[in-house]
Order: sequence, then C-alpha cells, then structure tokens
Amino acid sequence: MVIASRRELERSAAVLAGIRAAVVFDEIVQHVPAESAERAHRAAQAADIDVVVALGGGSAIGLSKILSLRSDRPAGLSIVAVPTTYSGSEATAVWGLFENGVKTTGFDPRVLPGTVIYDPTLTLSLPSELGVSSALNALAHGVDALWAPGANPVSALIAAEGIRMLARALPRIVARPAVAGGDPDLGGGGIRGTFAAREDALYGAYLSANAFSSAGSGLHHKICHVLGGAFGLPHAQTHAIVLPHVVALNASAAPEAEVRIAAALGSSSAVEGLLALRNSEHAPTALRDFGFAESDIARAVELILPAVPASNPHPVTSDDLTVLLRNAWAGTAPGRR
Amino acid sequence: MVIASRRELERSAAVLAGIRAAVVFDEIVQHVPAESAERAHRAAQAADIDVVVALGGGSAIGLSKILSLRSDRPAGLSIVAVPTTYSGSEATAVWGLFENGVKTTGFDPRVLPGTVIYDPTLTLSLPSELGVSSALNALAHGVDALWAPGANPVSALIAAEGIRMLARALPRIVARPAVAGGDPDLGGGGIRGTFAAREDALYGAYLSANAFSSAGSGLHHKICHVLGGAFGLPHAQTHAIVLPHVVALNASAAPEAEVRIAAALGSSSAVEGLLALRNSEHAPTALRDFGFAESDIARAVELILPAVPASNPHPVTSDDLTVLLRNAWAGTAPGRR
Repeated sequence: MVIASRRELERSAAVLAGIRAAVVFDEIVQHVPAESAERAHRAAQAADIDVVVALGGGSAIGLSKILSLRSDRPAGLSIVAVPTTYSGSEATAVWGLFENGVKTTGFDPRVLPGTVIYDPTLTLSLPSELGVSSALNALAHGVDALWAPGANPVSALIAAEGIRMLARALPRIVARPAVAGGDPDLGGGGIRGTFAAREDALYGAYLSANAFSSAGSGLHHKICHVLGGAFGLPHAQTHAIVLPHVVALNASAAPEAEVRIAAALGSSSAVEGLLALRNSEHAPTALRDFGFAESDIARAVELILPAVPASNPHPVTSDDLTVLLRNAWAGTAPGRR
Repeated sequence: MVIASRRELERSAAVLAGIRAAVVFDEIVQHVPAESAERAHRAAQAADIDVVVALGGGSAIGLSKILSLRSDRPAGLSIVAVPTTYSGSEATAVWGLFENGVKTTGFDPRVLPGTVIYDPTLTLSLPSELGVSSALNALAHGVDALWAPGANPVSALIAAEGIRMLARALPRIVARPAVAGGDPDLGGGGIRGTFAAREDALYGAYLSANAFSSAGSGLHHKICHVLGGAFGLPHAQTHAIVLPHVVALNASAAPEAEVRIAAALGSSSAVEGLLALRNSEHAPTALRDFGFAESDIARAVELILPAVPASNPHPVTSDDLTVLLRNAWAGTAPGRR
C-alpha cells in the first residue's frame, strides 16, 4: 500500500514507479482525522496489506502508523517511510489521531517505521516558508526532549546534536531556496550546497525526533497538541511560534538544558538563540496569523493545564499559560508579562 | 541461572540473595573457552533455563551470550547483565568464543542483554590497576568505532561522548582508589566522588560499547583479538597497550576521527592525549610484560593481516603491523620506526 498525497504521487512518480502497490491511498489530512484513518484501514484490510510505503510529511507517515496499530498482524505492518519534510515522524514510535475535536497521541513500538529512506532530492520542492517552519518544528522535538518525562543522558546527547544540525542547516536552506518542480538539475552551480543543507536538516530532524521518541512529550508538545487539535492550527507553524515562549518559561528552572540549547544554537542564551534563528529566517511569530483568536486563550489554558507533565522544570500555573499564550498569540517577546 | 565467578558470588551475596536460581555457574574463564561454554550450556539445557543473570565483567556476560546463542528458544535467553567492570559487553550484540587456539567473534541481536543494571557499588572492589586497564579497554571501543566498517554519524556522536566520559572519569577513579572489600561505607567523606567517578566510567563504557556494537570491529580490535586468542594475552591490558599505536597509524589518514578523539580527550592530538592519559594513570605500556615474546611478532602479523578491515583509513602492510607490534611489545613511542 502506498500512502502519499496526490501532489506527492505526481512529484515522486519516478520513485513510486518501481512499486506494484495493491492500494494507493492519497487522502492525506493534517493531524490524521479518524474518518480518513478508518477509510485507509478498510482499504488496507480489504487488500490484506502487509507493507505500507508512506511518502510525505508527518501526516502521511502518521496515517501509516494508525494502520499498523489497527492491523490484525501481531507485530503490526512493515512501514517504509520516505520523509519529504523535517517532521521526524519516521523516527518516532509516537502516533497521533484526531477524533471528535481532540487530538490523541500514544506511544507504541509497532508504529516505528522499520525502514526509512532519506533523500534530500524529495525535500527540494518544499516551499521555503514551510521548510523553515518544518525545521523549527523539528528543532522543537530536540528542545522539548531535554525536559520531557523520560529525558535521560543519551536522549539529551542526541537532542543537542539534532538542535545543532538543524540550526546550522536552517540559514543554508533559506539561502538556497527550493528548486522549481523539485528538479535538482535546475539548481545550477550550488546544487551540492543545496543538497548538503537539506541532508543536514533531515539528519537533525532524525536525531531530534529520536530523542523525542525516547524522552516523550514535554510541555511544548502538550501545548501544541491542544492548539492543533482543538483549534485546528497548522502543525509546523504552531510549533515554530510557541517554542521560544516555552523555553523562556523553563530556562531559569532548567539551567543544564538552557546551556545545552544555547551551545547548540551557537548563542549565549537559549531564548535569544531561538529568536535570532526565527527572525533571520522570517519564520512566523504570531498565532493570530493562523486563526487562533484572543478569545480562545482561556479555553486553551483549561485544556492544557491538566496535560502539563509533572516533570516540567518550572511549575506551571494557569496564569503562566495565559501569559505564554497571549504573547504567542500577539507575537510579542517571550516571557513578557 | 546465575553466572558469576566464585569471588563475585561471595562479594555480591546480598544482590543475589533475592534470586532463586535453578543453576549457579561459577566457572568464569577469560575469552570464554568452548569447554566452559559447553558445560554451562549443558547445565542450562538440563534445567530448561529461560533467564540468565550474568554478574561480572566481559567473561561472565560473554558466557551468558553463548548460552543465549545456543538456546533452543528462537529469541534466545533473556539476559540480565550486572557489569562489575567497564568491559561494555552488556551493551553489545557481539559474542566471542575461544576454541582450538582461535578466538571467534560474531554479531547477533539475540546476545544483546535485554536488561542491564548499573550499580557503581559493584565496581568499588575492582583493583585500581585493573580498573584503569578496563576503562582504557572501554575507551578503545569508542576510538575503534570511529573507523570501523559500520561507522556512521550517530555511532560517532555516541563514541565521542563515551571517550569524553571515560577520559574524565579515569583520573578520578585513580585518585579515589577501590575501597577494601567493596564496602562503600569505608570511603569516608569522599564517597560521593568515589561513586560519581565510577558512574561516569560505567556510562562512558556503555556509550563506547554501544557505538562499537553499531560500527563493528576496527583494526584495533582485530589486532587485540589475535593477541588475546592466539597468544593468551590478558584482554583489558592488551587493549590499553595497543590503542595508542593503532591511533598513531590511522590518525593522519582519518583527520575527522583524530580531531574528535583529541577533543574528547581535551588534548590537541589524539595520540598525545592517549599517552598522557595512560602515563598519568601508570597504565601498562609493554606487551612483553604480559607474556608476549618478540619472537611471536611474525606469527601475530600473519594472523592479523587477513583480518584488517577494508574500511581502515590507513592501508595496512605487513611492515606496518610489524613496526606497530614491535613498539607495543617494547613499550616504545607509537609510530616509531
């Protein structure tokens, strides 16, 4: 079974030509809605699918995970993930499903893709703006892993290297924008650098997601899951906007993580480093630009508060979350009260 | 089934008291000779063993690996490893067996212990000299992983951190020597530092072995396996002696690895850093002190040459190996011709 959006199927026709798929499923919707998942599951069942090739970002790979989870086979399905963004979904045992206005996530080894194919060519058609948000979303996996419930020395080592690779790659991705139609030959003399930047970003996304899969969801991901699930905000952009605000809240209470993030960003401060990176890449800064209303803040706080991990370095009050979301909504400086 | 030397069984009586073992096997011999392995296997078969608790260094844990490999159970045995040295065997899927004068090694996921318990208390009774050799042996896993056939960016990241932790821990282990009888209460005021140094060394040993298990055996391990197998040299000391000589041979041909090793050792040169570490800890320097004769060099070269990995950064001639072994035999400066 091949899972990919219609656009991706066209773009990657050459890649997919070698696969004789029993089913091709192209209904790829962000956050993996339960209805799409059910349609895909029925199609997989009917064709007795054993292997799924998911080509795309977190939504395509995320859908393949739900199919594996629901499969009758005890070990799940064999997933071959071919990522075209920096979502990192290919490197985690984390699944997500959107049902009745709520995004549920879980951890299950059966959803971890057994095979991942990284090909920077496939990311060349990613629009620059989306590439930046996607890389910042990847960076959020590494940062949040540093204070997530299962954080450990190995996950911290891998997370820090992931942050470093992504921070190094981001300005180079923007400096060498996506090539029309994804054709590498159009890149001219700079094609080697164009590839190298995207290879580094994919590698950084892999490392950060690997750390995240091992350490679990921290405060940042709890906030973003509520914003994505209950308010329909776009995944990558929401992560890019919220991250500096969470780091500003936790930095003083997590000095070791602060130093690691700052060093990986090549900055003297974690928050300053993130803001500098975000500003230099003209990344989105305000949730209000993506459909989140000021009047949504109170309900969002209510939904987030019970999900705050006990391991979060800074105790989190309703007031902390209100201030954080107001700043993220308006795009004002993190930590401002 | 409990596997531990008689001395370890006495020392760790409190740890083992909670285990109702069907078999206790205490014939622990270095390099895991086939005869011991066969006796242990028969005992395990007779008692229909499903779980092995191996308490000790690389020889005890290595024996448990052979039992898992020979088990009738498709997934092998469940191994609980409780390391008392820095051998790192608990973190690798590598097994070794000594038969008819030759040490055979192999890689099999069934031999990777599923559970590892690290307790620095158990390393306190390790004599200082053996502790140093064992930590240098651990360091060799990290160094050799950098140019082994399966070396990759993730294994290199983990190897470098392993080398760094071991180099940091070594002087502190020596400064706070083992406590008589392994009783932590005898440590006096410095007990916290005594523990911390050994915790760091165990963690460094874990990381380096993890990288080694992923990257495979490099030139260093091929040399040491011949010396240990065909000439009966002691494992940890042989590794400690040979390592700087291999690094001196490869350094110029592997500049990235050289920089990583040097940085992890806090030195401007990988070889100088290793020699400084070895000298400051009064580690062994000459193979002739451990039963290797000058007249053995020619045969050792013959045995090593066909085992040299194709991936080795520096092409290796018979002459290179003769010079290397002569220097290691005499304890003279690495690279000297």
